[in-house]
Amino acid sequence: MDAELVTLAEQVLAANRALGRRIAVAESCTGGLVAAALTEIPGSSDVFDRGFVTYSNEAKMELLGVSEDVLATFGAVSPATAWAMAQGVLAHSPADIAVSITGIAGPGGATPGKPVGMVVFARALRGQDPESVVADTRQFGDLGRAEVRRQAALVALNLLKP
Amino acid sequence: MDAELVTLAEQVLAANRALGRRIAVAESCTGGLVAAALTEIPGSSDVFDRGFVTYSNEAKMELLGVSEDVLATFGAVSPATAWAMAQGVLAHSPADIAVSITGIAGPGGATPGKPVGMVVFARALRGQDPESVVADTRQFGDLGRAEVRRQAALVALNLLKP
Repeated sequence: MDAELVTLAEQVLAANRALGRRIAVAESCTGGLVAAALTEIPGSSDVFDRGFVTYSNEAKMELLGVSEDVLATFGAVSPATAWAMAQGVLAHSPADIAVSITGIAGPGGATPGKPVGMVVFARALRGQDPESVVADTRQFGDLGRAEVRRQAALVALNLLKP
Repeated sequence: MDAELVTLAEQVLAANRALGRRIAVAESCTGGLVAAALTEIPGSSDVFDRGFVTYSNEAKMELLGVSEDVLATFGAVSPATAWAMAQGVLAHSPADIAVSITGIAGPGGATPGKPVGMVVFARALRGQDPESVVADTRQFGDLGRAEVRRQAALVALNLLKP
């Protein structure tokens, strides 16, 4: 496991533990990397509750309640989908803070306006007005699949810091 | 990502692709590592459908339908729980083959009869008699948390080979 991911995961767990917050995540392009980094830390089980690796569109709909309309209209890699994924995590877990990740790790999968390296994130907090949940789009460029995923996991972990 | 995991993940995907089989996984102690290895491979999305990182007991019950009775009677790290997790994956996904992993990565968490490094696996196939799903217990010993997780992920990936 990448040392930078593990160090950041440790900080995320400590900060949320201090606040009594539980974490859950929804991952598409990172495919479990964020959950794996968090659970690499001993004692993570009091803070990390669950992860949804919703790789297919069906999984996003069935496990997180992302609507077929949103996927058809905006696509799986879109702020609307990231927003719905993060909201879906809160609706399907007891977590206090949720992060979602959906993107194009490459080398395939690019479409007009959505290049390889484009990744969209959303963070949702329990009790927060859903309208104020903001999705953030990052363009990592064509760094290679592994590095796009690693960079995306780092951004997601940073979003889990209070 | 560990090279051995990635190489094995590539073999798993190719073999299941050839059979037209889709994969889903349920991970407790590996915390997303198996899903992350499978999705590290470009083009994995036609074979890998979803992953359940059911770290808490609540997640095992809510996402996979593991019964509170099984958890209370046999514990989270037991053949009965691994069996129920693998069956739960098939019940909550369209996958044709499912693997579950539950264990004690350490350094904490050992109980009498369940030492650090004990990991239980189950594999379930769509259409198979549920009674014939077998859970397999491995004792990796106290290799350190990261290495127990890595070894467990390797065993899980091998179980996904046809």
